[in-house]
Amino acid sequence: MTYGKRRWVWMGLICLLAAGLCLQAAAQTKEKGPWWPHPIWGAGDQSGGSNWITPEKVMASLKLVKTGKIYEIGQIYERGMPLFGQRTYAMFASQAGPFGKNKLMGHDDFLCAEIGQVGTQFDGLGHIGMQMTMADGSTKDVYYNGFTVQDDIANRYGLQKIGIEHIKPYITRGVLIDIAGYKGEATLANSYEVTLADVQGALKKQGIDEAGIRDGDALFFNYGWSKLWKEPAKYNVNPPGIGMEVAKWIVAKNAAMVGSDSWPTEVWPNPNPDLVVPVHQELITKNGILNLENMVFDELIQDGGYEFLFVFTPIRFKGGTGSPARPLAIR
Amino acid sequence: MTYGKRRWVWMGLICLLAAGLCLQAAAQTKEKGPWWPHPIWGAGDQSGGSNWITPEKVMASLKLVKTGKIYEIGQIYERGMPLFGQRTYAMFASQAGPFGKNKLMGHDDFLCAEIGQVGTQFDGLGHIGMQMTMADGSTKDVYYNGFTVQDDIANRYGLQKIGIEHIKPYITRGVLIDIAGYKGEATLANSYEVTLADVQGALKKQGIDEAGIRDGDALFFNYGWSKLWKEPAKYNVNPPGIGMEVAKWIVAKNAAMVGSDSWPTEVWPNPNPDLVVPVHQELITKNGILNLENMVFDELIQDGGYEFLFVFTPIRFKGGTGSPARPLAIR
Amino acid sequence: MTYGKRRWVWMGLICLLAAGLCLQAAAQTKEKGPWWPHPIWGAGDQSGGSNWITPEKVMASLKLVKTGKIYEIGQIYERGMPLFGQRTYAMFASQAGPFGKNKLMGHDDFLCAEIGQVGTQFDGLGHIGMQMTMADGSTKDVYYNGFTVQDDIANRYGLQKIGIEHIKPYITRGVLIDIAGYKGEATLANSYEVTLADVQGALKKQGIDEAGIRDGDALFFNYGWSKLWKEPAKYNVNPPGIGMEVAKWIVAKNAAMVGSDSWPTEVWPNPNPDLVVPVHQELITKNGILNLENMVFDELIQDGGYEFLFVFTPIRFKGGTGSPARPLAIR
Amino acid sequence: MTYGKRRWVWMGLICLLAAGLCLQAAAQTKEKGPWWPHPIWGAGDQSGGSNWITPEKVMASLKLVKTGKIYEIGQIYERGMPLFGQRTYAMFASQAGPFGKNKLMGHDDFLCAEIGQVGTQFDGLGHIGMQMTMADGSTKDVYYNGFTVQDDIANRYGLQKIGIEHIKPYITRGVLIDIAGYKGEATLANSYEVTLADVQGALKKQGIDEAGIRDGDALFFNYGWSKLWKEPAKYNVNPPGIGMEVAKWIVAKNAAMVGSDSWPTEVWPNPNPDLVVPVHQELITKNGILNLENMVFDELIQDGGYEFLFVFTPIRFKGGTGSPARPLAIR
Repeated sequence: MTYGKRRWVWMGLICLLAAGLCLQAAAQTKEKGPWWPHPIWGAGDQSGGSNWITPEKVMASLKLVKTGKIYEIGQIYERGMPLFGQRTYAMFASQAGPFGKNKLMGHDDFLCAEIGQVGTQFDGLGHIGMQMTMADGSTKDVYYNGFTVQDDIANRYGLQKIGIEHIKPYITRGVLIDIAGYKGEATLANSYEVTLADVQGALKKQGIDEAGIRDGDALFFNYGWSKLWKEPAKYNVNPPGIGMEVAKWIVAKNAAMVGSDSWPTEVWPNPNPDLVVPVHQELITKNGILNLENMVFDELIQDGGYEFLFVFTPIRFKGGTGSPARPLAIR
Repeated sequence: MTYGKRRWVWMGLICLLAAGLCLQAAAQTKEKGPWWPHPIWGAGDQSGGSNWITPEKVMASLKLVKTGKIYEIGQIYERGMPLFGQRTYAMFASQAGPFGKNKLMGHDDFLCAEIGQVGTQFDGLGHIGMQMTMADGSTKDVYYNGFTVQDDIANRYGLQKIGIEHIKPYITRGVLIDIAGYKGEATLANSYEVTLADVQGALKKQGIDEAGIRDGDALFFNYGWSKLWKEPAKYNVNPPGIGMEVAKWIVAKNAAMVGSDSWPTEVWPNPNPDLVVPVHQELITKNGILNLENMVFDELIQDGGYEFLFVFTPIRFKGGTGSPARPLAIR
Repeated sequence: MTYGKRRWVWMGLICLLAAGLCLQAAAQTKEKGPWWPHPIWGAGDQSGGSNWITPEKVMASLKLVKTGKIYEIGQIYERGMPLFGQRTYAMFASQAGPFGKNKLMGHDDFLCAEIGQVGTQFDGLGHIGMQMTMADGSTKDVYYNGFTVQDDIANRYGLQKIGIEHIKPYITRGVLIDIAGYKGEATLANSYEVTLADVQGALKKQGIDEAGIRDGDALFFNYGWSKLWKEPAKYNVNPPGIGMEVAKWIVAKNAAMVGSDSWPTEVWPNPNPDLVVPVHQELITKNGILNLENMVFDELIQDGGYEFLFVFTPIRFKGGTGSPARPLAIR
Repeated sequence: MTYGKRRWVWMGLICLLAAGLCLQAAAQTKEKGPWWPHPIWGAGDQSGGSNWITPEKVMASLKLVKTGKIYEIGQIYERGMPLFGQRTYAMFASQAGPFGKNKLMGHDDFLCAEIGQVGTQFDGLGHIGMQMTMADGSTKDVYYNGFTVQDDIANRYGLQKIGIEHIKPYITRGVLIDIAGYKGEATLANSYEVTLADVQGALKKQGIDEAGIRDGDALFFNYGWSKLWKEPAKYNVNPPGIGMEVAKWIVAKNAAMVGSDSWPTEVWPNPNPDLVVPVHQELITKNGILNLENMVFDELIQDGGYEFLFVFTPIRFKGGTGSPARPLAIR
């Protein structure tokens, strides 16, 4: 083969490689849509608001700890706790043994549950989406960052994209906004929509400058709803919560995540009867801001703990739609 | 009724009350046994080594963080990962919707697993016990602090005592002891029993004074075994690990917990063929020192991270025998 | 080797073989006990009353069919049906696809349940036993035919002996004894113990000679309790049922199995407050006569169907303690 | 109100009622489609081929029994049996007790499985469908008789239509067609497509007139594949089976159901590489002829049992996509 021929061969191979890379990139690129690519995290991101947790954020948050006291701000998982709709939580334990001359005995337990959607639960990016008509006329189920069930996610044995394993651990500043305390009520009324004025009033009462809420903070709302935890029949019905007004404020504040002491965090039902949990869509689907539900803040409030180191490590179930949680506040 | 009669009635009632209190106390008191009551934590304790995590320990541990870099030292949970024996890990996902004019779609996933005994797993106090002949000739299955299946624990739907919900969150100092690195091997040989000399040699090589191990530290052992994680057929067979010699050293060091990058932490099978996981009994049953298995330390070792803030929050499944984990090292 | 030597070698081998066979037999032989070996089915039997279903019994039973009409005498399994105690029945369905140019779609469902102990349920031989002090002073959990948990059965992943897979299919004569009809009540009163006189009276009223009950018949009792099936809060509380008097009559009649339209078949609680479901022990543990619960006979009674071909095929889950059922009466 | 006015009111009410009935009917009526309404069973039917099982069919089938010998033609369910893809079968057993002075002990077992899609399994009408573009341009997942996921079926907790509870019990004539025997092979070759000539040849060899196959018979195919049951690695790979040619013959024969000793009954993969289990669609989706997989016929063949009373009672899990089975042949 002459030199001239070889050169063409090389150029051809390079072109092929380039073509391959282009096609691969194309395959990975979602067409632009109303909420994708994510304006901060960009196309392909699967971690959403947890991206805010950088080493700098960690360092800044650790400085909040003054005494080392740990507060449990999640509930214990047990049979009989409030469950949404027809969800299941069933533990079944068994002992085996004895084994060996050391007469070893052992228990295992077997758990069947919507593990990320019972008790204190963290909604992942794959938990909430929206059915849409696409540019080509097809109907698709679209989730965070434009990932669709049809093209990207579908897998009966766990989501192929935006599974909970992509969420980074939360070691960040937590800010608790005690709406019930601000309103002077033990428990907010059924279906009360928390307003932005409530949020701002509560912050002011707590001595926290609204401007002091920083990128990547975790924002928590106390409705006093956890006082009903032991009464599932009441707990499950029409909780108060934030609506779209506060949701947009949360997005503007660049929160890493939100949480509350009710099962949906947002008001139920929505004041607009046509909409089903629209705040979930606004925060999770459109903005990647995840939501930790069924928390409990009473001990923290007793100590006036409105700012703290927040520690929460979502369990990395591959393809999971959510995670159980043992969230901590440390002061 | 005359005064005299009344006096006797009152005395009778007081005696009855006293008798009740005595009987209640008797019912709550375990006879002393070879390993109970626990010499440090006392009768009735259900938290074991996690009691070491005090506000002071938290404050001291936070000081170890210099850069805020987070290391994941647990594995991701997925179908196909190595499982012990006949254990199960089955996730099943389903989408529902659309709901409302906002066309809400949603996934739930349903998980069936020995949730605390698959993947990166934290053995709770109820996981390991010993069958014994008691003073009265009866046979009982005895666990940490003398709690028995027969008198205290038995419940098909979750343990009534020493459930995982009693374990406090671990925010403590982690010390990684890289045995594979010390021995100059990528992966220790099958069934190699790590000696105390290995431990002391590794610590010295890492520049950690053995005397510098403090009450309530979490001690981790790297065997290089996690390199086989993607090959379950190899991973599940005869891992190296610590034996009784190192176990007794761990107890003497007042460790809050231990962990490793193999599925039992201890050598398998035990060099004494009559014994089945005796280190589990020594640490968990007799001393309340819990054990986090199937970890991974490669990234940490690459950065020379032998001392760190260790963050691990066992999920509080009431009556659970173990917990899934997303353990972190922060430096 | 000389002939003489060879002879001794052969004799030695034969003795070894004999010794082996003897030891094996010894290992398989249970010491005699209060209810074992079973007087009819003998040592080692694991099929109990289902042994009555011979080809002759099948032939005789088929002759009962005159019209070919099939009656469903079991309930449909669904979420929300009455469940005993803390049992679980959770189905979770998921669609996947499309696959291929033929655009195949498919649903699977995932079920988590005490599959043999929910809804219309058939108690297997491993479901009920008795804790006893044995001749050697040890405590054992003894089941049908003397099999013990400690020596024979224990296996966390399914029983090693007397699993439901040993039960033969029931193609036999069914006899329905309508106690509620005899007493002239839609539903018998809570905790009413059905007497032998009731049974005999009902049979007489139905025109069935008591002596006409034959070996291997399946005997069913109607209490009218199934009328409460859609009201779990009532259904689960204190049903009427047979007691020890009728149980002994059932044993004497050599029934292949029994059944009823309540969840325990026997009266609850037992009139003797010290005893917990003693009829279960009498029938299942001591006599191998199994028990199909939560049936429904209304349509059959409407047609006067007191004698019929009974068809029921317990699902063969290896090591299972029970089975779901779709029992049929054919006339 | 005058008479005239009243008349109009009445007419109005009647019109309203008529309108309501019309709309209800419209809601229940599926537009005609390529395979719906079902030509025999009509619009709205949810029972498919099981409708053939009439009292007359039952009476005729019972006459086939000559000796009363029962043959088990399904497999036992156990951990380790061949499972398709990532399906799960996990049983977990637990003992509780003692209760009462009668020292009652009891086992329950907890089963997690795609209960209708593991082991000997009966594919229900909701198991297989086809994604289609409808007249109005929408995309729907269409199942038997035109029921769609989008309009009729969708329910995460069990199908709302065409659930397995609608299938009538099979008490019918079974005809076994021994293809392996006809071809003189113990086990047919991987991916061999059974031809109509094979079927006709086998029937002839067995002395069964093809014309003698009657409406509502259950047709079974023996491939010898069950000989591999204990070797899941072989069993799961590329079984032989019927193709579209035989499927159409089955439809023409008005079979009540089919079955075989392989996991899909049909050849895998299909000779047309673009198609995924098209025989499933042909039989189940388009014709309502259900399919019982993973059977075993060896004992039946040994006795020359090609015609028999077939007994199979699908378990009525509401909304289920399939059922476990203990199918019997009685001769």
